Amino acid sequence: MKIVCSKSDLIEGLNIVSKAVPSKTTMSILECILIDCTKGDIRFLANDMDLGIETIISGTIKEKGVIALDAGLFFNIIRGLPDSEVTIECDGELNTLISCENTAMNIIGKNGDEFSYLPTVEKNNPVIISQLTLKEVIRQTIFSISDNDVNKMMAGELFEINGDNLRVASLDGHRISIRNIKMKNSYNSNKVIIPGKTLNELSKILSGNDEDDVYIYISDKHVIFEFDNTTVVSRIIEGEYFKIDQMLSDNYETKISINKKMLLDCISRATILIKEGDKRPIILNVGDNNIKFHCNTTVGDFNENISVEKEGKDQMIGFNPKFLIDVLKVIDDENINIYLLNPKSPCFIKDEEKNYIYLVLPVNFTTVG
Amino acid sequence: MKIVCSKSDLIEGLNIVSKAVPSKTTMSILECILIDCTKGDIRFLANDMDLGIETIISGTIKEKGVIALDAGLFFNIIRGLPDSEVTIECDGELNTLISCENTAMNIIGKNGDEFSYLPTVEKNNPVIISQLTLKEVIRQTIFSISDNDVNKMMAGELFEINGDNLRVASLDGHRISIRNIKMKNSYNSNKVIIPGKTLNELSKILSGNDEDDVYIYISDKHVIFEFDNTTVVSRIIEGEYFKIDQMLSDNYETKISINKKMLLDCISRATILIKEGDKRPIILNVGDNNIKFHCNTTVGDFNENISVEKEGKDQMIGFNPKFLIDVLKVIDDENINIYLLNPKSPCFIKDEEKNYIYLVLPVNFTTVG
Repeated sequence: MKIVCSKSDLIEGLNIVSKAVPSKTTMSILECILIDCTKGDIRFLANDMDLGIETIISGTIKEKGVIALDAGLFFNIIRGLPDSEVTIECDGELNTLISCENTAMNIIGKNGDEFSYLPTVEKNNPVIISQLTLKEVIRQTIFSISDNDVNKMMAGELFEINGDNLRVASLDGHRISIRNIKMKNSYNSNKVIIPGKTLNELSKILSGNDEDDVYIYISDKHVIFEFDNTTVVSRIIEGEYFKIDQMLSDNYETKISINKKMLLDCISRATILIKEGDKRPIILNVGDNNIKFHCNTTVGDFNENISVEKEGKDQMIGFNPKFLIDVLKVIDDENINIYLLNPKSPCFIKDEEKNYIYLVLPVNFTTVG
Repeated sequence: MKIVCSKSDLIEGLNIVSKAVPSKTTMSILECILIDCTKGDIRFLANDMDLGIETIISGTIKEKGVIALDAGLFFNIIRGLPDSEVTIECDGELNTLISCENTAMNIIGKNGDEFSYLPTVEKNNPVIISQLTLKEVIRQTIFSISDNDVNKMMAGELFEINGDNLRVASLDGHRISIRNIKMKNSYNSNKVIIPGKTLNELSKILSGNDEDDVYIYISDKHVIFEFDNTTVVSRIIEGEYFKIDQMLSDNYETKISINKKMLLDCISRATILIKEGDKRPIILNVGDNNIKFHCNTTVGDFNENISVEKEGKDQMIGFNPKFLIDVLKVIDDENINIYLLNPKSPCFIKDEEKNYIYLVLPVNFTTVG
């Protein structure tokens, strides 16, 4: 095999496929990136058996062939080269020469035959959304998945298609995150549970450009994301997701309208006094047009007042501050609405159009003073 | 005690004195920052017993007094506040209230009497250099100190004053770094060995401004740096420093002139193939107007050629690549001169005026091929 590519094209390709290289594995072939030039183009592949990524990069094939190279070493070597044309060639003994200007490095590759290629999946009826939208919706929901081994559903997110609506949901037993997205086209109803790890890695390589589309193919065992020159194939989580509609409710006794940044800053400040492992709630004392925030910890106590618009009853309710912070960080609205029923019922943060719905369970607390 | 200061002034003061707060200590009072308002100004102090820092910050004293606050907690609280006026007040029970706009936090301080104030040192005949120069000279020499417990001199740097020349030197048994600085004024001959830790922390709080001066006072046991509103007091390393003049030599058989960036990039690339713990030298094969670099490691081998200007003999010599990289990173010249005698003698990298002299010992290697 012999190919010539620019350093920048190699770096771009490596950046993409390295997201599917496992950090820990006992199978050394999984730590490799496969360079496959047997099909007339230069393909980089990586596959950790749950998640596989293939991308096509620009360059010239001088001699067809295939070689697997240790991902970390290969990436570091390319990064260290001058910004110029790079030649990669290997002989029948897997000796690989990487040369660029006056520099040449010899390393030993692995046999491409040992590599696990991506599974073949039938691709029908893609769902199309922009890269920006997909990247954003992952960011806005991924924080409430759980690594909890008891219920593997919680390690994934539900992607549910109904007509032109895509609903993305995640939950971890304490909170639920839901985003609804209007798509350009309408589709048959379909749903899939996608592993959080796949979505995390995917969001790192999506361009964040609203003009560029992602094609999503859903099959029995796999989901495929196609965009630019890249294909991401992931296993799905099989089974029936939680019935989230039954967990939602539009009942409330108190509706609060509050400046999001002020609320986020206030709760973040309160957590400064909470040492790691010390599970202290932040207590909201909701009065007329004002919330008093209070947090009492092992190192001291915290008090702050914020003016709000309030409809309905006064309330006193406690939350895990981290759960509120996670939600507030991903909402872009300047002002948000919070709906409370009573101190033991979930609180809802949602917009009028229900583009987003966040549910957070309250925690018990003992009143002080 | 009651004071009112802007958040930004508090942050600036905390940034400075926190450099003298030890990361690990069994004495909890050392983890504190002392706020001392007994002398008519607001002073922040920290002292890890080797290094003490005092700085005066702007603000209004409403009530004189003194309190010691846990440095990490205090810093985090101030950082989290709105960008506004902050009031800090404490009662006789050490209860400390930090308030700002609608936020208030209560924490418990420590008794200021437990705090170790900075040692009193007589201040005569300061040596004056600019903050920029001091910051730079530390950066250019600090990498070749050693934590070696066998010889405590190696943990410090020699500051040696002769007339208007300041010579700063450090060595670790494998290499020597020397910088000579012309000062505006002349001084009596004097020298002092300053702990590397002091210089590291000092360089972080120096402004890097050529207009601002540092006043350096040297006494038997301490060295003091005064600049802006800040005083840094450090113990010194007592004893006689190495006779470095005896280690230097102007003899050479080969003089090489080479582009610094090309050399640095080349050696950095070679280290990509060296796994941690694998002590491989980089071998320089110096021929006519050309150096061939070679490095053979457990993962592969590296070859590169660089054109140079050469006077004198051909040479083949090996180095620990890290030692060369450290030197090359701190030299600002575009081209540098390297002087070689033979494969067992030190190599010198120095400029004609001897503003800098770097000595690096070669390593043994077995020739390949």
